[in-house]
Amino acid sequence: MTEQRQLKLGVSIRALGYHAGGWRHPGVPADGAMDFAHFLNVARIAEAAKLDMLFLADGLGIRQKDQPAGSLCRSNQNAELEPITLLSALAALTSRIGLVATASTTYNEPYHLARKFGSLDHISKGRAGWNLVTSWSDAEAFNFGRDHQMAYDDRYERAMEFAEVATGLWDSWEADAFRHDKASGVFYDPDKLHTLDHRGKHFAVRGPLSVARTPQGRPVIVQAGASEQGRDIAARFADVVFSAEQNLASARDYYASVKGRLPAHGRRAGELLILPGLVPIVGATRAEAQAKHDELQELIDPLVGLAGIYGNFGDLSGYPLDGPVPEPQDPKLRSRAAVMFRLAQEKGYSIRQLYQAVASGRGHRTVIGTPADIADTMADWVEQKAADGFNIIPTHLPVGLEDFVRLVLPELRRRGLFRDDYEATTFRGNLGLPEPRNRHVAAREGGVPLSA
Amino acid sequence: MTEQRQLKLGVSIRALGYHAGGWRHPGVPADGAMDFAHFLNVARIAEAAKLDMLFLADGLGIRQKDQPAGSLCRSNQNAELEPITLLSALAALTSRIGLVATASTTYNEPYHLARKFGSLDHISKGRAGWNLVTSWSDAEAFNFGRDHQMAYDDRYERAMEFAEVATGLWDSWEADAFRHDKASGVFYDPDKLHTLDHRGKHFAVRGPLSVARTPQGRPVIVQAGASEQGRDIAARFADVVFSAEQNLASARDYYASVKGRLPAHGRRAGELLILPGLVPIVGATRAEAQAKHDELQELIDPLVGLAGIYGNFGDLSGYPLDGPVPEPQDPKLRSRAAVMFRLAQEKGYSIRQLYQAVASGRGHRTVIGTPADIADTMADWVEQKAADGFNIIPTHLPVGLEDFVRLVLPELRRRGLFRDDYEATTFRGNLGLPEPRNRHVAAREGGVPLSA
Repeated sequence: MTEQRQLKLGVSIRALGYHAGGWRHPGVPADGAMDFAHFLNVARIAEAAKLDMLFLADGLGIRQKDQPAGSLCRSNQNAELEPITLLSALAALTSRIGLVATASTTYNEPYHLARKFGSLDHISKGRAGWNLVTSWSDAEAFNFGRDHQMAYDDRYERAMEFAEVATGLWDSWEADAFRHDKASGVFYDPDKLHTLDHRGKHFAVRGPLSVARTPQGRPVIVQAGASEQGRDIAARFADVVFSAEQNLASARDYYASVKGRLPAHGRRAGELLILPGLVPIVGATRAEAQAKHDELQELIDPLVGLAGIYGNFGDLSGYPLDGPVPEPQDPKLRSRAAVMFRLAQEKGYSIRQLYQAVASGRGHRTVIGTPADIADTMADWVEQKAADGFNIIPTHLPVGLEDFVRLVLPELRRRGLFRDDYEATTFRGNLGLPEPRNRHVAAREGGVPLSA
Repeated sequence: MTEQRQLKLGVSIRALGYHAGGWRHPGVPADGAMDFAHFLNVARIAEAAKLDMLFLADGLGIRQKDQPAGSLCRSNQNAELEPITLLSALAALTSRIGLVATASTTYNEPYHLARKFGSLDHISKGRAGWNLVTSWSDAEAFNFGRDHQMAYDDRYERAMEFAEVATGLWDSWEADAFRHDKASGVFYDPDKLHTLDHRGKHFAVRGPLSVARTPQGRPVIVQAGASEQGRDIAARFADVVFSAEQNLASARDYYASVKGRLPAHGRRAGELLILPGLVPIVGATRAEAQAKHDELQELIDPLVGLAGIYGNFGDLSGYPLDGPVPEPQDPKLRSRAAVMFRLAQEKGYSIRQLYQAVASGRGHRTVIGTPADIADTMADWVEQKAADGFNIIPTHLPVGLEDFVRLVLPELRRRGLFRDDYEATTFRGNLGLPEPRNRHVAAREGGVPLSA
């Protein structure tokens, strides 16, 4: 197995894990979401395992829809630490793992974000990453002076221009601009400082950025867009795509679609890595793995489970949980709920079984099985050009990550599919990605810059 | 000496220190402004000395006025790490010292800042502070889509509303809102979560904040306003005022003015601490201290020195540095420059001596002398109700701080004026300030909340 076939692996560490019942598991510190020690523990497990990145999702508000009544206070999706702040603290106590924070282009200013991620890249000595997202919920709009969310096309147009400005600001200083020459008194070479002077539809930003060129050239850019606009932003700017794919066929289509857009931006296929989310539930035997899954499913509070299907079925809290799923009555819901209702009928699902099926995975692919089962499917996806690696979505933390590290990683290593140690000191270096060339150096020296 | 007479001491750690020639001193790491190790070193010196706070000033852009030509690249005021990111990383490697980041109310959104400072307070276990400022320069406006800076009154009106929103968001959760009860499935008590629903002139923010009530109730608020509006914001919201006072008489007036405004906001004099900036240049003898000062003055690059008086005198780079100061020719400059010109005439200053006099201190009081001299003046200011302590402004880092810690602190301790060890684990606790009461608890239980 050659090195370039090896998987890249991240882990998504939001709050207490992704399974709706996970926080109630005996191995989870239920107060961990606001506790730095919890995240430090998770980070140390991931770095000891030589994973590529810690990934922090984010939202800019609490989605306060208490439906059915009493469900919200039973969910753990509410208080959490701000990602950049948290990852900067983790940077001080880790040395190799990449640190990716989600930050919205919808409710931020590019100067602020370019500065913060640039600072994080310096503080971590080249391990910062930015997951570039747009914000789609009204709950977030309400916290930033708006009565409703921004229209989809406007959000994506703004996101594209935001990325142009941020990458432009990261080219403000050439890498060797600073002389720090005490004898002559020259602090920097003025020819190596560049003012952006951006004036676009959404932003006017003069620059230059007050942060020196970063150890990675610029932070790693992660993107998760599934739409056409999202794929275009990814192809133009992203180093890593974190996708949500449930099956191999659609994952292959997505992989081909995004990689196929790279040449139009002067980029090669190897310059962007696609890492689908993967929820592993692993046991020494399949029965043990299934038992772990069953245990988690039983921990879903019924109101939280019903909240997860409220958007499609309305309030089912008046129906017996172990009775049949009623046909959706609200005509607005009917079309969206039809597929789920048919599934429930085919499988003979009760209401409880339906919300359990929905709660597991939260849009990402769940694999329940032995280490060999999980390694098989990962290897298969890479071989079939559906993935360059995976972003592991633990059901509950730290337990879901510990299980993956203890059981699956040795199997991947046995097959030569995952590293024994980090290859580089920077995140970009470990991902095997080239360092972006400063546009001003490229313009002076000729040649094509590696990215726009 | 009773404990409440003890001084509170912070240290301002921006970049490489405050003296215009400081970065060229042999003891200064000239590349330190972008190097986390430099700040960690400074933080550890300050925490070992039991200082109350690390204070980080900030600006949102490079003030690119290269006048006289060639001066800008000889100044060290350009690239620096973003304060919240830097302090969060330092939080992970310190345990007692307060961490104060400057953040602008002019170009930020209150939801973002309340969240970041709330997160920093959790990560540091109760050591976060926010220096609330407005942004006054065009260079900053240009980075945030504006053609010029916001008008003064608008900035301060926005700042006041910003503080109302931020403090409101920090009361979103009551301290005991989270139950994390795995058995019953209840994550939080919904009666203890409060939605702000703020709709004002500058901001509309629904809330609630997605960060639990912080270890200090809310982060310590620092303010540095000298104007009427600044004093009003301080009296209403600040826990600490960082003032710039050159002499005892004006410092006493300022102290009385700000403390006198507290009762109107239902606050007592002891609930707000006033810490003027102080630039100590200390030697075992006065001659040694003077020699240290002279050495720094000699390190000021002439162009950087001339840049410091450009605003008042225009471009003097064509004149002999050791010749007399010419009378200001530009009538626009004349009125502002008159005082400095008279000073230069009275003292017989050359151009070099004039810019040296201006460069030293940068608006803060400089004291050059023995440990006893410096302790005397500090004790005098506290006794005369001009200060509750000081924010130390080192000329150059880490040397200026090391000198202060090694020479002045033992003298202060000998006099019983400074602590031997921290009294508390939180910043607020070490400052001896009360924890703000949650407004919703106060409304339910009666009594007057400690702050608005």
